[in-house]
Amino acid sequence: MTSSQAILNGDRLALARLLTKVENNSQEGRAALMELFPHTGKAHLIGVTGAPGTGKSSLVNQLALHYRKKEDKRIAIVAVDPSSPFTGGAVLGDRVRMRDLSGDPNVFIRSMASRGSLGGLAQATANMVQIFDAAGFDIVIVETVGAGQSEVDIARLAHTTLVVEAPGLGDDIQAIKAGILEIADILVVNKADRPGVEHTEKALKTMLELAHPTERVFKHHGTYMSVAAPKTNANTKMWIPPIQRTVSTEGVGIAELADAITRHVAHLRSSGDWAIRERTRLEVELEALIRNGLMIQFQGEVPAERYEEVLESVVHRKVSPWEAATMLLNGRQK
Amino acid sequence: MTSSQAILNGDRLALARLLTKVENNSQEGRAALMELFPHTGKAHLIGVTGAPGTGKSSLVNQLALHYRKKEDKRIAIVAVDPSSPFTGGAVLGDRVRMRDLSGDPNVFIRSMASRGSLGGLAQATANMVQIFDAAGFDIVIVETVGAGQSEVDIARLAHTTLVVEAPGLGDDIQAIKAGILEIADILVVNKADRPGVEHTEKALKTMLELAHPTERVFKHHGTYMSVAAPKTNANTKMWIPPIQRTVSTEGVGIAELADAITRHVAHLRSSGDWAIRERTRLEVELEALIRNGLMIQFQGEVPAERYEEVLESVVHRKVSPWEAATMLLNGRQK
Repeated sequence: MTSSQAILNGDRLALARLLTKVENNSQEGRAALMELFPHTGKAHLIGVTGAPGTGKSSLVNQLALHYRKKEDKRIAIVAVDPSSPFTGGAVLGDRVRMRDLSGDPNVFIRSMASRGSLGGLAQATANMVQIFDAAGFDIVIVETVGAGQSEVDIARLAHTTLVVEAPGLGDDIQAIKAGILEIADILVVNKADRPGVEHTEKALKTMLELAHPTERVFKHHGTYMSVAAPKTNANTKMWIPPIQRTVSTEGVGIAELADAITRHVAHLRSSGDWAIRERTRLEVELEALIRNGLMIQFQGEVPAERYEEVLESVVHRKVSPWEAATMLLNGRQK
Repeated sequence: MTSSQAILNGDRLALARLLTKVENNSQEGRAALMELFPHTGKAHLIGVTGAPGTGKSSLVNQLALHYRKKEDKRIAIVAVDPSSPFTGGAVLGDRVRMRDLSGDPNVFIRSMASRGSLGGLAQATANMVQIFDAAGFDIVIVETVGAGQSEVDIARLAHTTLVVEAPGLGDDIQAIKAGILEIADILVVNKADRPGVEHTEKALKTMLELAHPTERVFKHHGTYMSVAAPKTNANTKMWIPPIQRTVSTEGVGIAELADAITRHVAHLRSSGDWAIRERTRLEVELEALIRNGLMIQFQGEVPAERYEEVLESVVHRKVSPWEAATMLLNGRQK
């Protein structure tokens, strides 16, 4: 039996092994991904992002517990950790979550360090999600620290994106909110037992009004270089992101949050946005693979010495980076 | 007189206009960049990054004031703001800084929103820096919110990277520190009049020991796809990042911080690391331009209908993204 078959049959050990192979970008992992791809497209992908200190991990925990206990769904969690590009490793996630969720065969948690290049991380996340999807997990939650563009870009490619806030995180964070609010399908005010929760909620409401223009344009071929994906089909009724209060450490508001997620799925299905988001996500992934493939071809076509020579002339300010790039791009067919 | 000549002559209005042209990626802007490039390579580039709430902007302010008053240097500040990819705009920065620095012809502040793709922002930042460098600014400070990989990548390409921390920002932020500590040349504990400053400093010291391996390998051609650039020449004496306490709102510790920066420049010059960093920065920029150029060529070679057709078969799970990318890459020569 191939590892793909084992995974389709629900073999947990085979799943764990394949995830590692795929994360290491091995040949075998890539082959399995291809075999599994036709079996994807069923899972509901939930992105969870928010600034540090908002209690995202604990919220994701509680949401997973809720789905296990109340809806009997199989849950996978991909936690993208902001740890070192050099040392790698997945520090957070697992440890914190072991207590509540370990031992449940229908929960699978995977942490990933944001090592190496951005493209690499986004690609690795997409691959993990596909494997969990093929393996029959009903819900795949991708959790990122939403303070940087890269992490936000990863979370926004889900069907449903939760943006988590919390009272009392300081003014500087307001600026970040303005950016990530626009990708939110549901806003969560976690730690809602803290002072200042009304203020936070009010600020979010004000910003929501600013952040949600009345229409968005559907992305077409000519602009597929941009990662800025539309999240709403302009032809259908707008989804106004609800604001949900939670106290994740005590499980307060989790059932209501799960209800809001269910309503969002219904909206996506009825409006046609589900298909649009699926398409956008796959298009972004395809584009990243093409970019990477083009670079590999380029490196095969341009001798290392030629590249070094041109770089040298940039370093000595003889040609600008722009001219150098043009020289290398035009000269590679020879 | 061309706009490039006006800028070399110190014309502030011409500078402001060119920055806008370059930010909009206009033809004229690109031409000016090429003309100005031979005049670059003189400025000291300082990257300042740190989590939200650490008081980076105010610190950069004070540093700029110090350089103006005590060292009579010309200062440019590029503030990369974490605002919306949709609405654009540069919200923070300017407003806060106007009081102390406005009216001084030897200070120029430019805010940039992290709109659009990551590559675009890094490229736009590199272009701004080159223009300021050519325009004769002695010091160019690039300030980013160092909570995401993208922002960290931008800050790390400076000659000297400051990582700013502050006491009492919560546990979640510790995880981020682990990642950005490794790019720090100087650690700043700002808001050092707050309780918990000893704890923060101690934690930083412990993490510094973990974060600084004894040697790093110099990047060579074969691996130039990676943005992970070395910051230290393994053949020379290591630079151990000092920890500097500041209270930027009151100007405390700023002179000492400026001294540490001066020592770092001396270290870079004597060790040869200055040249290595220059080279790495230009190499990263060249690579980004090549990647972009390759994608533009690809789009010219693959008809939109063909691309849509292949994407369609991915959406319908007939071929995996990997296979689709391979088909498009191999088919484009026809």
